Amino acid sequence: MDKIVRINMADLSSRIEPVPEEWVGLGGRALTSTIVATEVPPTCHALGPSNKLVFAPGLLSGTAAANSGRLSAGAKSPLTGGIKESNAGGTAAKMLAKLGIKALIVEGVPKEDKWYSVHVTKNALTIQEETETVGKGNYCLVNTVQARFGLPVGVITIGPVGEMKMLSANISVADPESRIRSLGRGGLGAVMGSKKLKFISIDDTGTPPVMPKEAVKFKEAARVFAKTLLDHPVSGQGLPKYGTNVLVNILNEAGGLPTRNFTSGQFAAHDKISGETMYETIVARGGTPTHGCHAGCQIQCSQVYNDKNGKYVTSGFEYETIWGLGANCCIEDLDDIAEADHIMDDIGCDSIETAVMFGVAMEAGVLKFGDGKEMVRLLREEIGKGTPLGRVLGGGAGQVGRIYGVTRVPVVKNQGIPAYDPRAVKGIGVTYAMATMGADHTSGYAIATNILNVGGHVDPLSKTGQIELARNLQIATAAIDSTGMCLFIAFPALDIPECLTSLIDMINARFGINLTGDDVTALGKAVLKLEHKFNLEAGLSKEHDRLPEFFSKETIAPHNAIWDFTPEELDTFWNF
Amino acid sequence: MDKIVRINMADLSSRIEPVPEEWVGLGGRALTSTIVATEVPPTCHALGPSNKLVFAPGLLSGTAAANSGRLSAGAKSPLTGGIKESNAGGTAAKMLAKLGIKALIVEGVPKEDKWYSVHVTKNALTIQEETETVGKGNYCLVNTVQARFGLPVGVITIGPVGEMKMLSANISVADPESRIRSLGRGGLGAVMGSKKLKFISIDDTGTPPVMPKEAVKFKEAARVFAKTLLDHPVSGQGLPKYGTNVLVNILNEAGGLPTRNFTSGQFAAHDKISGETMYETIVARGGTPTHGCHAGCQIQCSQVYNDKNGKYVTSGFEYETIWGLGANCCIEDLDDIAEADHIMDDIGCDSIETAVMFGVAMEAGVLKFGDGKEMVRLLREEIGKGTPLGRVLGGGAGQVGRIYGVTRVPVVKNQGIPAYDPRAVKGIGVTYAMATMGADHTSGYAIATNILNVGGHVDPLSKTGQIELARNLQIATAAIDSTGMCLFIAFPALDIPECLTSLIDMINARFGINLTGDDVTALGKAVLKLEHKFNLEAGLSKEHDRLPEFFSKETIAPHNAIWDFTPEELDTFWNF
Repeated sequence: MDKIVRINMADLSSRIEPVPEEWVGLGGRALTSTIVATEVPPTCHALGPSNKLVFAPGLLSGTAAANSGRLSAGAKSPLTGGIKESNAGGTAAKMLAKLGIKALIVEGVPKEDKWYSVHVTKNALTIQEETETVGKGNYCLVNTVQARFGLPVGVITIGPVGEMKMLSANISVADPESRIRSLGRGGLGAVMGSKKLKFISIDDTGTPPVMPKEAVKFKEAARVFAKTLLDHPVSGQGLPKYGTNVLVNILNEAGGLPTRNFTSGQFAAHDKISGETMYETIVARGGTPTHGCHAGCQIQCSQVYNDKNGKYVTSGFEYETIWGLGANCCIEDLDDIAEADHIMDDIGCDSIETAVMFGVAMEAGVLKFGDGKEMVRLLREEIGKGTPLGRVLGGGAGQVGRIYGVTRVPVVKNQGIPAYDPRAVKGIGVTYAMATMGADHTSGYAIATNILNVGGHVDPLSKTGQIELARNLQIATAAIDSTGMCLFIAFPALDIPECLTSLIDMINARFGINLTGDDVTALGKAVLKLEHKFNLEAGLSKEHDRLPEFFSKETIAPHNAIWDFTPEELDTFWNF
Repeated sequence: MDKIVRINMADLSSRIEPVPEEWVGLGGRALTSTIVATEVPPTCHALGPSNKLVFAPGLLSGTAAANSGRLSAGAKSPLTGGIKESNAGGTAAKMLAKLGIKALIVEGVPKEDKWYSVHVTKNALTIQEETETVGKGNYCLVNTVQARFGLPVGVITIGPVGEMKMLSANISVADPESRIRSLGRGGLGAVMGSKKLKFISIDDTGTPPVMPKEAVKFKEAARVFAKTLLDHPVSGQGLPKYGTNVLVNILNEAGGLPTRNFTSGQFAAHDKISGETMYETIVARGGTPTHGCHAGCQIQCSQVYNDKNGKYVTSGFEYETIWGLGANCCIEDLDDIAEADHIMDDIGCDSIETAVMFGVAMEAGVLKFGDGKEMVRLLREEIGKGTPLGRVLGGGAGQVGRIYGVTRVPVVKNQGIPAYDPRAVKGIGVTYAMATMGADHTSGYAIATNILNVGGHVDPLSKTGQIELARNLQIATAAIDSTGMCLFIAFPALDIPECLTSLIDMINARFGINLTGDDVTALGKAVLKLEHKFNLEAGLSKEHDRLPEFFSKETIAPHNAIWDFTPEELDTFWNF
């Protein structure tokens, strides 16, 4: 029987509730955003007692469906001031789903200045004071917790950056090899830190797999679905071999690879950090180029990156991180970037926000463009330890811009703009401007259609069709984010009709219902609208649906592209 | 002949323009806000090339009218993100008025990373590169500049904090004794710093006094007006003797003296920092208890505060500063506070923002409540030198709250809440919430009617009548801020009918026009409305017209008062 679990940190109590009728058909982002929009006052302090931190597996999490193991977290974001959902793989989503926990809601803040952990099993939920793991990094923490329970429990945790409530703090989960995956964006780790909750551990011992109501129908749909993932060239070939970092060369070629804090669209040393180079390096050092972040992943875009001695450095080494510390900071040494990625996973800060921040910090003169060694030092010795400079940098790109008076600060709603220049790829620019999440490429990944020719083609340098593209992608993404599915299923979903129909068939078979494609679209629209309403009530008016001024004043090479959408054009995004 | 002077920092040029018809009847805040609202894009970066920094003397500046020597500065504020006007006394306003400069508009940013100064005389405006004074504090700078020109020129300047573009940076002017007065709030010093303009010097040699069109009528009105200032007990007795610091004991008695970062309304050691104690200290040490900040001031609320050896420490030692570093930071030693006041004047940071910030920093554990010596060290060694910690603290209360994850952060629109608790004095709370300037007591000084029984009495602890009170005061203040008058003329203006009629008579005689009281009210309303429109277009929606959450959750002793206005009630403020 599905249930809602509430944890009240104010009195260290928990309670189990039945799933309200109106939440039954919701999962993942649809559920976290609904709960936040319903229960959190939009103008509250994001780190105060009124905010709630909600975890929810997706609608298909815990089943045998491929790529269904994403865990969503939601809250009011201390970074953007608006609503936030962030998701990642790992083992926690599947375990929560098997335990029948549709949502786990963390409320209130403790009365005493003590740290706590939560342990969830089939039979009990225990809240206990935590001392052993406080101040520890995520790698150490996961090992400590799994040793404590003597088995590979699911772990949802924050590192020191989250404990210190810095606005770049993320929430991490353990992957099947006890390595680190992160729900990266929006400072949700600071919310968890404000609730003095160091980690949640989940033991699903004694629970059966999630059984679909219509098992035969489900199995057939799951087979069709999985085949579409393998058949599409992006999800079946490009991502498995090169990971997301296949994009370095593609974006460089397109002139949309933001370089030196968004002052050029091409990076001269792109080949030194490209997916192709990374693949060769990994293979040569005995690493693993193809690896999944959760059980049941068929795309396997992750990898294990070793150092020159063949020793593990990092996994889940993503394009956005490599772009951000590489091209955007002019750092050419992939080993420096890999070490930084490891540290960020360990101390618990968002690698996108941090990379965009370093570009601004370099412009401010805090360190030099290209100085990978100093970047690593700042991460380990300053941010990780919470020195004054570390706290400055740990607050993200917007904060560093404010503190040093920098005007070229690539943020929307105070969240750092990721790895695709909005002037040269205008569809993603519309997504950055309009996303309820702040600047977030995953909210509506227009790169697919602007650059990769997935789902057709829309000229990246022209304004024509971009608003409709970004709108449709954001609606679809809001629905996908509710299923527990990895966003990369969007590639086959945009090109192979059976992908989406089999996905819907799986949901119908899982719950014994009869959703149509229109229902899924309606769900996506409803999620976006309730998130937008929350943001407006939190004070993020339409003037916040804009890119920073410099994108409209400075052209970017090689296309001399400029951001030229008018406010009125952008506002038509919400006409649906 | 009155003129508008524009300085373009992008090409280091200047030009003189006739006064446009629609600006003829405007001065001070009415003129700065009109120019900013007309010429600055509301969503621009406040430290970028699109912002403009406007200086304007008031309508009566340069005449013989008492207390007419205030200089207004306006721009988009980097602190609040909205429109900003701030004003102070000193000698610059009178000199600009005598030179016929109705507004001086600084536009653009230099192409090169060099500093500049501007020198204005009767015959010329010179822009020159500046090296000698860069990095210097304001006291040193004023002496250096006056020595350079060999006479007491007017000086408008920024200190190191403004050069470093910290958001607490103010703009300072020299007073008649070459000491420092500050246009404190909203980070306008950072705007001046972004334009790489270290100072403006003004030499009015060879200009006659400003002659009213109807001299006899003016002289008679000026006499009546001056008499009302002397007749009213606040402007004629309380302020001249004790300065604004007379308020410590009054607010403590009323339970509205925010203490220990707004956790109590009374400070046990209030008598150690009171105006009465300060008066005795000043007299005992051979200081000056009564002193004016500009020629023609009749109220003389300023003073010269000496140290134990009789050596000058500071002047313009205001209640808000003494409250903020005293009660709010639990610092009991007036000498520590005076030293801090001197340093803030010298390095150029707003003493209110900085004092509120220290309360938050103490709550965050950066220093201990009550540690005046460490506060002085942080000002001198960290903020003044721009260390990482200094830049954290120099960003104001909101920034320190964000960086350390503090939830009790008394700001509205990111600007620190001054010296009167909004729970115990609800009229000023409405002003804080609704003021276009962010939290600013001078925008609508409801303390007058809530606490001092000036202009009648409205019970400070009741919601009844507060919105109407704050609205009427804000309208009147917007008009007064346009005349060049010190706001303290509001005390007689609220109680003695001849004060306001003689003020209007002076304006009419000055320009040969026929304003009525209704015209003045209409001007105040128009100013507020255009400022409000700018703010809305800058993204400061009605959700920003609110006090922080904690005021509605935490009561304050001794009255157990709580902030209980609903959003809907507050929004009725704009019904005019």
